Amino acid sequence: MIPNDTIVALATPSGAGAIAVIRLSGLDAITIASGVFKSVSKKVLSEQKTHTIHLGHIVDGKREIDEVLVSVFNNPNSYTGENVVEISCHGSLYIQQEIIQLLLREGCRMANAGEFTLRAFLNGKLDLSQAEAVADLISSDNEASHQIAMQQMRGGFSTEIAKLRQELMNFASLIELELDFAEEDVEFADRSAFKALIDKIVVVLKRLIDSFAVGNVIKNGIPVAIVGEPNVGKSTLLNALLNEDRAIVSEIAGTTRDTIEDEISLGGIGFRFIDTAGIRETKDVVESIGIKKTFEKIEQSQVTMYLFDAEKNINNLETVRVEIEKIRNKYPQKPLLVIANKIDTLDDIQLTEINNTIVEVLLLSAKTGFGVEQLTNSLLNLINTGALRNNETIITNTRHYDALLKAFEEIQKVKHGLETGLSGDLLAIDIRQALYHFGEITGEITNDDLLGNIFTNFCIGK
Amino acid sequence: MIPNDTIVALATPSGAGAIAVIRLSGLDAITIASGVFKSVSKKVLSEQKTHTIHLGHIVDGKREIDEVLVSVFNNPNSYTGENVVEISCHGSLYIQQEIIQLLLREGCRMANAGEFTLRAFLNGKLDLSQAEAVADLISSDNEASHQIAMQQMRGGFSTEIAKLRQELMNFASLIELELDFAEEDVEFADRSAFKALIDKIVVVLKRLIDSFAVGNVIKNGIPVAIVGEPNVGKSTLLNALLNEDRAIVSEIAGTTRDTIEDEISLGGIGFRFIDTAGIRETKDVVESIGIKKTFEKIEQSQVTMYLFDAEKNINNLETVRVEIEKIRNKYPQKPLLVIANKIDTLDDIQLTEINNTIVEVLLLSAKTGFGVEQLTNSLLNLINTGALRNNETIITNTRHYDALLKAFEEIQKVKHGLETGLSGDLLAIDIRQALYHFGEITGEITNDDLLGNIFTNFCIGK
Repeated sequence: MIPNDTIVALATPSGAGAIAVIRLSGLDAITIASGVFKSVSKKVLSEQKTHTIHLGHIVDGKREIDEVLVSVFNNPNSYTGENVVEISCHGSLYIQQEIIQLLLREGCRMANAGEFTLRAFLNGKLDLSQAEAVADLISSDNEASHQIAMQQMRGGFSTEIAKLRQELMNFASLIELELDFAEEDVEFADRSAFKALIDKIVVVLKRLIDSFAVGNVIKNGIPVAIVGEPNVGKSTLLNALLNEDRAIVSEIAGTTRDTIEDEISLGGIGFRFIDTAGIRETKDVVESIGIKKTFEKIEQSQVTMYLFDAEKNINNLETVRVEIEKIRNKYPQKPLLVIANKIDTLDDIQLTEINNTIVEVLLLSAKTGFGVEQLTNSLLNLINTGALRNNETIITNTRHYDALLKAFEEIQKVKHGLETGLSGDLLAIDIRQALYHFGEITGEITNDDLLGNIFTNFCIGK
Repeated sequence: MIPNDTIVALATPSGAGAIAVIRLSGLDAITIASGVFKSVSKKVLSEQKTHTIHLGHIVDGKREIDEVLVSVFNNPNSYTGENVVEISCHGSLYIQQEIIQLLLREGCRMANAGEFTLRAFLNGKLDLSQAEAVADLISSDNEASHQIAMQQMRGGFSTEIAKLRQELMNFASLIELELDFAEEDVEFADRSAFKALIDKIVVVLKRLIDSFAVGNVIKNGIPVAIVGEPNVGKSTLLNALLNEDRAIVSEIAGTTRDTIEDEISLGGIGFRFIDTAGIRETKDVVESIGIKKTFEKIEQSQVTMYLFDAEKNINNLETVRVEIEKIRNKYPQKPLLVIANKIDTLDDIQLTEINNTIVEVLLLSAKTGFGVEQLTNSLLNLINTGALRNNETIITNTRHYDALLKAFEEIQKVKHGLETGLSGDLLAIDIRQALYHFGEITGEITNDDLLGNIFTNFCIGK
């Protein structure tokens, strides 16, 4: 099943940089690299120790392509578990291409997306959920998603699943053993201990399944619909939130994004702010369409933020109140944050009036920064980050979620079977099914389609 | 002069990739990295051999930021000549930033553009022209510019200059020695040998100075103005040329450019094709402006390519001939390639007619590929690539060109002084000046402004 050809790919982002890293993995990785590498100190690459670095040139016959550093990793002490060579060359696109094309001519094959990690899995360096965590880690863009991916990569989740699976398997063996002695009517598996285990599994599975709701929003960012008129100060508010927290875009040269997106990391959690046109009543057809769209966006969001211009609406607070009621009535379950912006120009009497007319209003001035910290805290309080803070396992992967749901279903059948005194042979079938779904998560049970689906989502070179 | 603080930067391109490399250099590079690195096998980084790689985690207190590979290079056996650490982490922007920010908190400083290479120069790992070649190498995008940069980085150019400088310096010492014995009227420096040396230097300098014309176009690509009506088949022709040669954009996934630019590498030389509106006579004001612009573009180009639709113009060849004459008369010195495109639809009699009416016309069909190879050869023949093929030193750097011109001027003065029997003390002054300009090239003579100018053109991380 494990392929023995040697794959090659660019491991660093394409584009201009000081250096680029080209990665080879496979039986012949070191031999192939040896053939195109001329060490400055006449060293033979294949005779070098694992985890050593060598200065020299990549040569195509007599032609020198680049001065490079070559890192050697001997099987099994590498990322993939195979022989691995990493060539650190100058960051010219031309040089990268010349080296990769040379290696292809020398017998390498272009790696598919995620193929290095697939090989790591096939060689037992990682289980499947750890391999999936590698892709999550690379795409993590805030503290929370990063922390979850790191935990999963360290195997926290796999260990928990594997432990349950092992205990369940022990009971399964005992019950199946009973079947061999069916006529003697013995009970090797202690039914009350088994019930206790099943109860424990139910609790763990429920917690993991429930964590998916949190995990999912953490992984993808929490969608927040901002409802408000034009000029109500949306972008000033987003910038103020951005400054309140340490921004993703920071002062590190070379890593600044071109535009500040409306995705902001607050307290380590990603929030996606979705602009809407507001819901002010109008006879204008175009604007009515806008209102319809606003409601659609609210529906798709996790949180609604109603923002109004306190200065402009100070004599119009009743209209504002009615609008807020309309949203609250339409989506009673959805958290709604009401924010009166631009309060810096108002006096105390006016502020009191706002407080008296609009319930649970947050007084804010995006311009001066007043109230922004409170808003950040309100947003974070809406998210159940308890599990995150307590370092509990959180499910972020739909595939795991599905497998856990199926395992949960089977475990419920086992539980019911135990309670109703179901015969051992029928019980064994349900247990096997549950075991199957546990195995799917960590990759003990797998198939090519599943692996294909998982690894095509990786980037090439990983 | 050599700073002793520790600098850090991302060495790989910013953006999404499997891995990213963060580079540290300076006295405390290994100590600082040690403080944030937890080896999986409990190794202490500062006790490791140079050129070794270590698996572990970057930790900020108890928090694990990433699983990484750390490469250690001990002073002076590193790129910069200082202690260097390279951290190979997962390619997430978030992780890169977290690690760099951690290192900044631990006492590193963000590197300036080119600062790693500047340090390599200051520590004597490279001379100045070699350091400049590093930037050229990174930006090289075709075989010729790559080859020149490699040669310069290997020190081919520096060696040639340094050798001349040494010989000249020997004579300068002898002549200055004569001054000490002025009253005895001795001649330590053999004047005829000195004259021979000066003549040799003149030849070498002239060759180097002349090579700049070739070097410059190779480095920047050779501009070719394409003169032709709309629908004459310009883009089909460019695609045909692109296919004739191995394209820069190749089948390597992840390295393909978004759009095929009009810069094409033919026979290892970059050509920049500049589209023009043609020069057909018209009364339309807008079109007259177009004609004016066409002439401007011809002026800026190295080569003009006149392209006409042979099928459409078969009964109109005289007009075509007149247009071509107009260009030839206006720019008698500029190479002009005349191409009759779309000849696949014409018969032999028509082709003969074209050949008879238009001198030196190249018959071509971009569609079938007929004549494309001949066009490629014609373009390459226009460029004096003899020097390139013979592996001679070619100057591509304006700074070197200027210094060589100045050195040439001083050497001419020395030559003239020798011929007219100028006294030793005056001769010595001119020789010193020539030596100064030689020294500027390799960096034996330098100042902060010059270094600043050179290294700010580098990317950060190199």
